[in-house]
Amino acid sequence: MATVEELQKKVKELEAQLAAAQGTVGPVRQKIDVMSSEVVDSNPYSRLMALKRMGIVNNYEKIREMSVAVVGVGGVGSVTAEMLTRCGIGKLILFDYDKVELANMNRLFFQPHQAGLSKVDAAAATLQTINPDVTIDAYNYNITTVDNFQNFCDTISTGSLTGGPVDLVLSCVDNFEARMAINTACNELNQKWFESGVSENAVSGHIQFIIPGETACFACAPPLVVASKIDERTLKREGVCAASLPTTMGIVAGFLVQNTLKYLLEFGTVTHYLGYSALTDFFPTMGLKPNPQCDDSFCRSRQVEFKAKPVVELATEVMEDIAPVHADNEWGISLVDENSPVDSECPRLKLVEGVQVAYSVPHDSSTPDSSTGGAVAASELSLEDLMQQMKSM
Amino acid sequence: MATVEELQKKVKELEAQLAAAQGTVGPVRQKIDVMSSEVVDSNPYSRLMALKRMGIVNNYEKIREMSVAVVGVGGVGSVTAEMLTRCGIGKLILFDYDKVELANMNRLFFQPHQAGLSKVDAAAATLQTINPDVTIDAYNYNITTVDNFQNFCDTISTGSLTGGPVDLVLSCVDNFEARMAINTACNELNQKWFESGVSENAVSGHIQFIIPGETACFACAPPLVVASKIDERTLKREGVCAASLPTTMGIVAGFLVQNTLKYLLEFGTVTHYLGYSALTDFFPTMGLKPNPQCDDSFCRSRQVEFKAKPVVELATEVMEDIAPVHADNEWGISLVDENSPVDSECPRLKLVEGVQVAYSVPHDSSTPDSSTGGAVAASELSLEDLMQQMKSM
Repeated sequence: MATVEELQKKVKELEAQLAAAQGTVGPVRQKIDVMSSEVVDSNPYSRLMALKRMGIVNNYEKIREMSVAVVGVGGVGSVTAEMLTRCGIGKLILFDYDKVELANMNRLFFQPHQAGLSKVDAAAATLQTINPDVTIDAYNYNITTVDNFQNFCDTISTGSLTGGPVDLVLSCVDNFEARMAINTACNELNQKWFESGVSENAVSGHIQFIIPGETACFACAPPLVVASKIDERTLKREGVCAASLPTTMGIVAGFLVQNTLKYLLEFGTVTHYLGYSALTDFFPTMGLKPNPQCDDSFCRSRQVEFKAKPVVELATEVMEDIAPVHADNEWGISLVDENSPVDSECPRLKLVEGVQVAYSVPHDSSTPDSSTGGAVAASELSLEDLMQQMKSM
Repeated sequence: MATVEELQKKVKELEAQLAAAQGTVGPVRQKIDVMSSEVVDSNPYSRLMALKRMGIVNNYEKIREMSVAVVGVGGVGSVTAEMLTRCGIGKLILFDYDKVELANMNRLFFQPHQAGLSKVDAAAATLQTINPDVTIDAYNYNITTVDNFQNFCDTISTGSLTGGPVDLVLSCVDNFEARMAINTACNELNQKWFESGVSENAVSGHIQFIIPGETACFACAPPLVVASKIDERTLKREGVCAASLPTTMGIVAGFLVQNTLKYLLEFGTVTHYLGYSALTDFFPTMGLKPNPQCDDSFCRSRQVEFKAKPVVELATEVMEDIAPVHADNEWGISLVDENSPVDSECPRLKLVEGVQVAYSVPHDSSTPDSSTGGAVAASELSLEDLMQQMKSM
């Protein structure tokens, strides 16, 4: 039988251990009211505020007024949210309906002890520990259901720190339906957003900046990814999971947040489309104009509004003066690569070599390649084929 | 005065709280003997083993036999170590002598509660929690002192899982002296390594694969970075800290580990030099041949050995058949860009536009630009200037 003294000693030991262990779950620094440039070890913002002294950013503190929605908190979205949190973003709004699993441990951010927790709750707790200055809202639902979609629209249109629309929506989802839901919402709300994606073989990815009416939306044309030269037919069998790598997902998240920072803080040039092929370290950039016959009526309205604007305000330099390559272009899709020369001898629009469509567009099962369900190699795909696939949606 | 019963109850409560809190600090999954491809939520390797099914990697499990040394566990090194840990690398050997500070919180990986801990110990604890299958050794010292340098050489030459040399050394350090120490060790030990770096204005970075005798070593020529078009003279004043961003550092770590995986697991093409300019999303690649007059005698010996080899074994395709651009080239430095055309009208070797030297090479204070101490814009720098700077070291 333990004595009172022994038990008291034990209590003290346990309290000390608990205090140490809880350091990993609760905020351990006080909130900071004003971002300081002071160069001291205790200032979490000194290296960011130094961007002003270096002449990169004029007004770094402005980031504290900014609100960003991150849809999908998986391999790309969680790292995206962490980067924005560490940069001191004003407000983050997270959407996901998945749970953390050990099978996610090959990507950055989540840790094994979080297995079983909802991704948004686990992420919000970790992010708040990292930076208590960031306001974090978490929505644990699937945005594609009718009720949730309406709530999603309401949230991004009133979710900023001042009750207005968020400054940017970042799509980090892993499926076609969720991307289409974000696209529909952003066209209707006239909300700028970034789409992102990583291929199922884990070795390529992309980001794409979508300005409603000004650049191609997700419904205008199938987004493109870097060709992997892998037979996509092997990917979609039952009981088979996609491959993923922390490298590719971290790089895509890095591209996404870097361009987000450039857009929000007005430095450098925001890239409209940036691809990444890991096997060869190939990084295609290109511009995509909106499709005047886009199925999304709000996209078409935004295009009319954009054309009526007296002054062209382009956030991306890359979109300037890009003429359609293909004159007889029912869909108005124009692909302009900035790295590789266009094959002028080809009478049909060809996707740039090394680039293919990113997502499987659901189409009629009577079409020949429906069994693959996967992306189609760019070199085998004409614009006519693309149009045919889009029509059969 | 508390009774024994009250204290016992308190002990039980504290033990329960501690168990919950320690979920975040101790390993919470058992070690796994054999990597499995099974597609279940509880398998942390399913998404990595899927790389085999996707046709990307032939033998992913081989990664468990691999040992990698990471020198410098800061903004790039910590993320590098985390990515390798999540990929299931066999053994990681970490070197650093710095402590975690709140001023590091603008980069990924470390959390505020770790402030004050040594970087290697804090990193090892977190990494072991993430993946208990990885063997992690941590060395909390500065590799550039005489004793530590010898220990560093011994460790990387006998530190593999089987007692031999590590498979790769990754330099994630932030200063010239440490890079030179790694270079000296790797030339002597004939050890392949990657150099990495991020500019002081936080918006560019690079990785470079160094194969002793086969590609330029760190002493052969100043490594190059993407030009930032920022006046470097603003960077080096007293009491001023460098800027850094979680995006740029995460991207450079991603490039570093992706090319490490390609090298270790033999897929894709290992890029010899990959640069990144965040402001324009520009990614130069190039090859650098070793300098026959390199100051490092081991580098010169390795070059002789390499030339004597009957068959050219090139890990990087980019190095094949690259002829020196500049015939009258005392230093034997050749720069070959693969993105931009070389200006053939210029009689002197010019660095490709948008590229500059990465590090300030210490030189005589009588040279005109010594006050800058910084990198020199590529467009203003001839090979002769480069040679002059190197000679004055």
